[in-house]
Amino acid sequence: MHISSLAVPGGTTLERGLMTPSFTGLISSLCRSSSSADSSSAAKGESVSDTIRVISCYADICAMRHPKEGAPIVASEYSTIPIINAGDGGHQHPTQTLTDLLTIRNLKGRLNNMTIGLCGDLKFGRTVHSLINALVRYEGIRFVLISPEELRLPEYIRQDVLDRQQIPYEEVVRLEDALPKLDILYMTRVQKERFFNEEDYVRMKDFYVLDQEKLALAPEDMYVLHPLPRVNEIAVEVDDDPRAAYFRQVQYGVYARMALILTLLEVKVC
Amino acid sequence: MHISSLAVPGGTTLERGLMTPSFTGLISSLCRSSSSADSSSAAKGESVSDTIRVISCYADICAMRHPKEGAPIVASEYSTIPIINAGDGGHQHPTQTLTDLLTIRNLKGRLNNMTIGLCGDLKFGRTVHSLINALVRYEGIRFVLISPEELRLPEYIRQDVLDRQQIPYEEVVRLEDALPKLDILYMTRVQKERFFNEEDYVRMKDFYVLDQEKLALAPEDMYVLHPLPRVNEIAVEVDDDPRAAYFRQVQYGVYARMALILTLLEVKVC
Amino acid sequence: MHISSLAVPGGTTLERGLMTPSFTGLISSLCRSSSSADSSSAAKGESVSDTIRVISCYADICAMRHPKEGAPIVASEYSTIPIINAGDGGHQHPTQTLTDLLTIRNLKGRLNNMTIGLCGDLKFGRTVHSLINALVRYEGIRFVLISPEELRLPEYIRQDVLDRQQIPYEEVVRLEDALPKLDILYMTRVQKERFFNEEDYVRMKDFYVLDQEKLALAPEDMYVLHPLPRVNEIAVEVDDDPRAAYFRQVQYGVYARMALILTLLEVKVC
Repeated sequence: MHISSLAVPGGTTLERGLMTPSFTGLISSLCRSSSSADSSSAAKGESVSDTIRVISCYADICAMRHPKEGAPIVASEYSTIPIINAGDGGHQHPTQTLTDLLTIRNLKGRLNNMTIGLCGDLKFGRTVHSLINALVRYEGIRFVLISPEELRLPEYIRQDVLDRQQIPYEEVVRLEDALPKLDILYMTRVQKERFFNEEDYVRMKDFYVLDQEKLALAPEDMYVLHPLPRVNEIAVEVDDDPRAAYFRQVQYGVYARMALILTLLEVKVC
Repeated sequence: MHISSLAVPGGTTLERGLMTPSFTGLISSLCRSSSSADSSSAAKGESVSDTIRVISCYADICAMRHPKEGAPIVASEYSTIPIINAGDGGHQHPTQTLTDLLTIRNLKGRLNNMTIGLCGDLKFGRTVHSLINALVRYEGIRFVLISPEELRLPEYIRQDVLDRQQIPYEEVVRLEDALPKLDILYMTRVQKERFFNEEDYVRMKDFYVLDQEKLALAPEDMYVLHPLPRVNEIAVEVDDDPRAAYFRQVQYGVYARMALILTLLEVKVC
Repeated sequence: MHISSLAVPGGTTLERGLMTPSFTGLISSLCRSSSSADSSSAAKGESVSDTIRVISCYADICAMRHPKEGAPIVASEYSTIPIINAGDGGHQHPTQTLTDLLTIRNLKGRLNNMTIGLCGDLKFGRTVHSLINALVRYEGIRFVLISPEELRLPEYIRQDVLDRQQIPYEEVVRLEDALPKLDILYMTRVQKERFFNEEDYVRMKDFYVLDQEKLALAPEDMYVLHPLPRVNEIAVEVDDDPRAAYFRQVQYGVYARMALILTLLEVKVC
């Protein structure tokens, strides 16, 4: 079995979740970081469609992380092997979402009748976009969207996904205002560069840092998830709280990706 | 079984053909791209001879891609394991040539009595140099060398290889002039930087782009090969023509390298 | 079995000794060289403690090379899997030391009653620091510390390790003065940048280059070790001398690391 993991310069590296026990023999990423010395196929100007036709000759599966939205779809049209979208730009991150669903299902015992708080960079956060798309398929889902004005969930998701399916949601700026009503709090990084101006950043940055003081406002059975890596948006003091579930989430991510791979390879594990 | 794949900074990355099913357990490339942060053995100033003596302790085979012509020969003098030259500077690329031979043999049913058109950068193109060296061993081989004046096949190859062995060849500037007489068209990239002056580049660049209009001039049983990645020297519209063989060539490359490795490891597959 | 090898930007790459036959399935290093394009967990600002908690979910062992002294200790406090310190800054390099001990034991038949010359950059050389710490556990060990004044062994090692345990040692500036009394000569690189001023460098650089002329001063049964890669501190002419043991040392390094891994995995090889 050979699984090709594909990335491009300027993009990101191998998804960490690929480093699982199923990936013995994982093919090295083609990614190289600097463009001058870069000699990967992408740096030489090869198209996604050409690259995937080549990879199809080598591997049984291709896990693709790409800075351009839609690249995995293009790849799938030319590929003779399954393509796993391991994150495409600010668009989607479906393997993280499988991880998130498995985590929520195991922690809460259900995926329906749930109020989910999504906090941080909701504009560019592909994990958030994917998770919303997945959760709206379940009954009784409500969202609380917690972000600064400039990093709100894109209108195309609010309209095409939430409004169209009449999914209830509210948007708030302060994490404190959302915490008491949540079953799940999904934290993401807010990068300083994406803030508007220095003044707003200084004024708001603490809104998006979860510490024990804020966590005291949350229900006892709320769980905190995060796709990791975190920088400072969850204080280390929170790690020991039984509601901090982000490291358990990592382990679920290994299992979710193992299951995905076995499914794509049509391997039965009895 | 462990196969070491070796590259150096400023050089190129792992040859894609190494990513084959035989390479479970492939040892990571030592290549790093930027010299400042580089901590590979080459960046620390280690010689090729020292590096290969170390690699010999770890691996059963070393596939070496190196920016300096002759590095694999030097390595082989100090190595206790087989060295595969996976491309040395502008010199040779023998594993690509094994691929090319296998492809031609399977497509045409023969390796003799053939007119081969070599198009593009014949000066620096190591795949072209290797292929010429291999094909002259067969009977009835003729070459048509298609390139701008500045990127002609080096004189040492024309004289020492072609003239010495009385191999018939002609040199042309326009691809159209060559196409009607070819059994195989071997395309390579022409990098803009290697052109002489902007004016010549503008005047000539279309000469080296194969599109359907030009392909109409070629025999029905001519095949188009390319070592890939291509940039724009073969129009995408050509991909669907039955004569376009460059993606089939990739698959033959996997088999050729598998066979090479099995041979070097003295593994019998019955 | 999965072994995670971890490095960070600005640090160094995978320890070469990790590329051993035991490491089929070795997880790719997270290291990327340039900070701008870097997308590893470290570049995103993830802490060592977070990273190792994630790695713990993927791997059975983590071999960690880190530019910050003490990082592996921090990691071990948060890890659920064994951490191998594969070099932390200028501090320690214990797997190299296991290699060195195995080499000395096999070459000399003993680890006690030995005079060890340590030559080169004793200030920043982590392999030297680790080797001293290991050898002082044996009886009858003496050290000859050969370095320029500016690159002397740090005072904390001289006082806390050597003086405290009453280990005899002397410090010399010229390699020639040490050679006649040694059982083992352990060479390390002296990087020009670490020299004081150009004048001193020019005056002294030859002191730390072992050539055949100097080697003639050494006992017949003295062995020369070096953690490699070497630059020019051992002349190539020395390689053929039976006392040159640095390439045999590489092979012992493979065995030492195999043994370490099997021990950590509690795998019995009968």
